[in-house]
Amino acid sequence: MQGLGVEDTTMTALSKIGEFGLIERFKRFQNLSRHVVTGMGDDAAVLEYDKTRYQLLTTDMMVEGRHFWSSMCPEEVGYKALATNISDIAAMGGVSRSAVISLGVPGKMDADYLQKIYQGFYRLARKFGVSLVGGDTVASDKIIINVALLGEVEKKNLVLRSGAQAGDVIFVSGGLGNSFKSGRHLTFVPRTKEARFLVEHFKPSAMIDISDGLAGDLGHVLKASCVGAELDERFIPVHQDAMLDQALYEGEDYELLFTLSPVKAQRLARSKRGDFCFYPIGVIVPGRPKLTLRRKNGKNISLKTKAFSHF
Amino acid sequence: MQGLGVEDTTMTALSKIGEFGLIERFKRFQNLSRHVVTGMGDDAAVLEYDKTRYQLLTTDMMVEGRHFWSSMCPEEVGYKALATNISDIAAMGGVSRSAVISLGVPGKMDADYLQKIYQGFYRLARKFGVSLVGGDTVASDKIIINVALLGEVEKKNLVLRSGAQAGDVIFVSGGLGNSFKSGRHLTFVPRTKEARFLVEHFKPSAMIDISDGLAGDLGHVLKASCVGAELDERFIPVHQDAMLDQALYEGEDYELLFTLSPVKAQRLARSKRGDFCFYPIGVIVPGRPKLTLRRKNGKNISLKTKAFSHF
Repeated sequence: MQGLGVEDTTMTALSKIGEFGLIERFKRFQNLSRHVVTGMGDDAAVLEYDKTRYQLLTTDMMVEGRHFWSSMCPEEVGYKALATNISDIAAMGGVSRSAVISLGVPGKMDADYLQKIYQGFYRLARKFGVSLVGGDTVASDKIIINVALLGEVEKKNLVLRSGAQAGDVIFVSGGLGNSFKSGRHLTFVPRTKEARFLVEHFKPSAMIDISDGLAGDLGHVLKASCVGAELDERFIPVHQDAMLDQALYEGEDYELLFTLSPVKAQRLARSKRGDFCFYPIGVIVPGRPKLTLRRKNGKNISLKTKAFSHF
Repeated sequence: MQGLGVEDTTMTALSKIGEFGLIERFKRFQNLSRHVVTGMGDDAAVLEYDKTRYQLLTTDMMVEGRHFWSSMCPEEVGYKALATNISDIAAMGGVSRSAVISLGVPGKMDADYLQKIYQGFYRLARKFGVSLVGGDTVASDKIIINVALLGEVEKKNLVLRSGAQAGDVIFVSGGLGNSFKSGRHLTFVPRTKEARFLVEHFKPSAMIDISDGLAGDLGHVLKASCVGAELDERFIPVHQDAMLDQALYEGEDYELLFTLSPVKAQRLARSKRGDFCFYPIGVIVPGRPKLTLRRKNGKNISLKTKAFSHF
């Protein structure tokens, strides 16, 4: 048992039950009040706010040596730590407002290096109207960055993972695959504008951001919505430098994945969308949360919906 | 430069400028909107909410091997991680509502151990009406716990660090010193009830929770309020198992430190306070943020207001 000095042969290692098995365990301990509309299990928690709006609350942790390395530009590392959270708020249809940032840092570290991480937060915060209102700084062996972000969304514009219906068309907002090696995971622009355009004009039935891979994140939507899906390989916008498998399983793309009724899907195709690109990649089908891929050769194969697990 | 693989003889190590020097640097990069009443530099950020209330947002990080050890009871470790945040909200006069929790954990770790940490959160959350609404779980070499907590306070009841005035009496809400070695830092009850009693009946001019030591946290109040203070050694409630120096400099007590005008201080002394204990320990004096201690022998000495620094 790494880091704990305890050995127990009967234990259930996290690597066995995975991140999502763990979330299922934790769900028993939420102690939700009436104030909470949606707790664990979506991109952000949904809290009552006022007559017309909900508040959204999300958090993400990044650890040096796991999510980023010292060779990476510190400004980009800071940028990413905030960007992943803004992406979560966008996936609920919302806009980001206030963030608190915790930093774990080695005492011998250069303060200027840390300031560059902070400048990365700031650059993005200014662009997306986010206030950096507080935080915590503690000593640790490796750099740790945790961002908690508060946002809001009009009640009528809230989109959850659980609303996909048989017949709906599945879309993604951009190219997928090879995000980590290409460095795109450090520079992506959170899809807040696209999400706001969608919720204001088309109100998707379900939405999520692709952090754990297309198959895994679509799997979350299917499970939450109790439906299946059929994707068409020809329509999946795989990046030029990527393979299909990377698009399906690697994650870190932070594109929006959403579903629209057939009528709305047609309207979207005909609409003025400015610079936005929305790619239809398949359809929702009735039945169990099963995922099928139609290959280029016309054959159907079954895909695992297992998301990227940190363990 | 530990954990980064970069060496630069011109760098400013964090251990030199310290946690609070760092916060001063970060303050330049807050990008505050009108929505933000108070950003960095108090126990929690203060955000506009509705006509009569503010929202409060705070965060705290704990790292294995720095803030807790594997030999400690996991339930108590979880309890503490949430309790320190509830204490921050209480120090603003507020009540806690919703928390998101990030966990960094080794993949080989026992899921049951982690569940016990979570039960620690839950036990306290239930007691204080906090909903655990979401979080993040990632892989790391050591256990990391980050809690971000949202609370609220009536506008009329908000207390900042910056309101202490010359002549005010300084109080603490309980015994101080030796919190870490005695284990009290793992089991303390956040002073929300005491804080609510105070803001509703006496409205302190300034308040903070003692996390970095009496001298350091009083120093924060003095600096924010532009005043000095004189403490009387005889009145400081040092725990039986502790020395005065531990009360002054060790921290982790999580008692409230607050100031009241002389008239209110007299009213508090005569009031029905139930089980609450409030100890007057000195007075605020005009002038620079200097701290003086009157020893038992009648002599005055000057105290450093330097807070416990994590670096």
